[in-house]
Amino acid sequence: MRELRTAEIIAVGSELVTPHRIDTNSLSLTGRLNDIGIVVRAKAVVGDDPGDLSAVLRAAIARADVVITTGGLGPTEDDLTREVVAETLQLPLEEDAEILETIRRRFARRGVRMPEINRRQAMVPRGATALPNPNGTAPGLLIETGGQLVILLPGPPREMQPMFDTHIAPRLAERAKGRRVLRRVIKITGRSESQVEELAQPIYAPLRDAAIRIETTILASPGLIELHLSASSADVEAAERALDTGVAQLAAALGDVVFSTDGRALEEVVGSLLNARSWKIAVAESCTGGLVLGRLTDIAGSSAWVTGGVVAYANEVKIEQLGVPAELIAAHGAVSEPVAKAMAEGVRTRLHADVGLAITGIAGPSGGTPEKPVGTVVVAIAASATEARTFRFVGDREMIRRFSTAAALDMVRRS
Amino acid sequence: MRELRTAEIIAVGSELVTPHRIDTNSLSLTGRLNDIGIVVRAKAVVGDDPGDLSAVLRAAIARADVVITTGGLGPTEDDLTREVVAETLQLPLEEDAEILETIRRRFARRGVRMPEINRRQAMVPRGATALPNPNGTAPGLLIETGGQLVILLPGPPREMQPMFDTHIAPRLAERAKGRRVLRRVIKITGRSESQVEELAQPIYAPLRDAAIRIETTILASPGLIELHLSASSADVEAAERALDTGVAQLAAALGDVVFSTDGRALEEVVGSLLNARSWKIAVAESCTGGLVLGRLTDIAGSSAWVTGGVVAYANEVKIEQLGVPAELIAAHGAVSEPVAKAMAEGVRTRLHADVGLAITGIAGPSGGTPEKPVGTVVVAIAASATEARTFRFVGDREMIRRFSTAAALDMVRRS
Repeated sequence: MRELRTAEIIAVGSELVTPHRIDTNSLSLTGRLNDIGIVVRAKAVVGDDPGDLSAVLRAAIARADVVITTGGLGPTEDDLTREVVAETLQLPLEEDAEILETIRRRFARRGVRMPEINRRQAMVPRGATALPNPNGTAPGLLIETGGQLVILLPGPPREMQPMFDTHIAPRLAERAKGRRVLRRVIKITGRSESQVEELAQPIYAPLRDAAIRIETTILASPGLIELHLSASSADVEAAERALDTGVAQLAAALGDVVFSTDGRALEEVVGSLLNARSWKIAVAESCTGGLVLGRLTDIAGSSAWVTGGVVAYANEVKIEQLGVPAELIAAHGAVSEPVAKAMAEGVRTRLHADVGLAITGIAGPSGGTPEKPVGTVVVAIAASATEARTFRFVGDREMIRRFSTAAALDMVRRS
Repeated sequence: MRELRTAEIIAVGSELVTPHRIDTNSLSLTGRLNDIGIVVRAKAVVGDDPGDLSAVLRAAIARADVVITTGGLGPTEDDLTREVVAETLQLPLEEDAEILETIRRRFARRGVRMPEINRRQAMVPRGATALPNPNGTAPGLLIETGGQLVILLPGPPREMQPMFDTHIAPRLAERAKGRRVLRRVIKITGRSESQVEELAQPIYAPLRDAAIRIETTILASPGLIELHLSASSADVEAAERALDTGVAQLAAALGDVVFSTDGRALEEVVGSLLNARSWKIAVAESCTGGLVLGRLTDIAGSSAWVTGGVVAYANEVKIEQLGVPAELIAAHGAVSEPVAKAMAEGVRTRLHADVGLAITGIAGPSGGTPEKPVGTVVVAIAASATEARTFRFVGDREMIRRFSTAAALDMVRRS
């Protein structure tokens, strides 16, 4: 049997070649394939056109050991993956009585008669294995052709992912002979991409030339830099060790800007730190308008360490709800360290928290002045002591709000 | 000269075939191509492998009038788009003295000598037009071959997009003979995808068979359904009229669940409604933890109609900051219409707003009871009168929070 090393993924659907929708199935599929040691060589997206799909399919089969399609298995006339694959592989389509019955029952459970068009979903290319779909009507299909696998999966992620995990992953893992792609992610905040690159560069080279070669990639978004390390090997233990060493070396070189090497998000790290001390946090937000609280409360169980918060857009809210002295705002302006400190202390006391966090700033596009341009953001934290820090972020409104959120969460982590 | 009707887009880079990064350049390129009447047939993503890139390139040239590549124009050995395209089209590469000088000057401005590897970026396939890149070192390339266009653009969006707009769009528009793809989006909340589909279905068919054919697509995410209508025609005025009629018919059939037909988000619609009345809003959030405020304050200028809000996770915050009577929570529970109403009235009065909005619910995964299962969410709104509504959402924590946010914003719109 041919060893399975490479895959190509084809997403089918005219909505995926518009400006409005992107194929994300290929990301989760790539992760799952990598986990069992299969590398993705290329990906394609085609509209609902039989000629284009057939050509793309033939090209993929010429290159890869595994070809996976997603989408186009529905009952309507736009859905033509099943037919085009059968024709391209020159396999006749035959109705499968068992699948038909399963689809009929699915409709019956909802008290509806199966529409005649759904009958198409019971057609199976000769020799193919049908893959049950507990989350939808369209079964998947697995076709073995000359040692290669052609796999047809439904488009909706909640149907596609469980089908892959239950029926495809075990078969592929068996044939991939234990080779796996292992990954580590180092997450960093408070540094720019080029600053991280400069510190990491001297460590990359030996990692790439090691016995177990480690590949590195850097990904940047506002307030978050990720360094990805990956190693492909059949010796999983040795690969794990090589990655651990690489992560340790990079983390040491980068210092305390690294907040996570185990996949956790910044808000999760902050949550665990608070939880470990049985501390609760309350947040007063101005320019971030609820985003910091939104991220903290994204974490299930956050009610154990978040008491709540105040979004104080208007100055009177800062004064009345947070007890910021009106004179302080008049003297220093709402975006200033004294006001941020008073907000942090106010929200800590009034919302019965151990830690008070405050963010005030100018996210733009208007509201900037020569002394306090758009992007000026002050973060304050009140615990046993109160401290504040002023940042100057560059970017549009959304970027400044995201930078501010990351900076605020990171100040909690550091204190 | 060949009329340009179809395009294919190829994104080049090994990082784009990992689970961590997705090609988004193709979305903005597709929008820009559609605007000048060119339809995208297919898209591909390939790693930094010359054989794969050459094969994908040849296949695209066999199908499309315009082939655009993004990425792989950098100076390192991984960057091979320029070389592979030249070889595939059998054009010799020649060093362009002018480009070399531009790159040298770019480095000199930063006080740095040009590294020798950047010399590769001055190589141009014979007969190609180099496209200046004011935002980076890699020039783009435009190659005319047998009436078709092959266009090489850099990968970073801030370099790629201005280059397309300045140098490519005008040339393509001239050759596309005035044909354009026009779009409308109808945004709906408070209905499921299948409910919208059922109401819209009878209207679709005549739209598809009209003189100017209108294509429709439905896109669903938690709390938001979008109906996209598009028409491709050289008679822009007639296409605009046909789309306006289609939008009007669909909006009439769907009724008041339609909140926007002009592209605006729900929070923008709510903001304009409040602004028009010179009303200000304040929000008390429990299960959504700041997400409603986060969305409202996403809008530039929202400080004119948002005074602020309180995130009341702990019951004592509901009692002290919002004035919810402790007896009310004891009698009905924190997730109840009486408590939600008291929260809405409390935040309205205490934060000096005209409208008070409150959300309390159980986002899960824990905290549910048989009477109030996970997904139970109460939204209350206090203005001249106070009303509350109880929802039962289905999904995970994130989906319930997103559904709740949309439902809350929609209650403001409706009142």
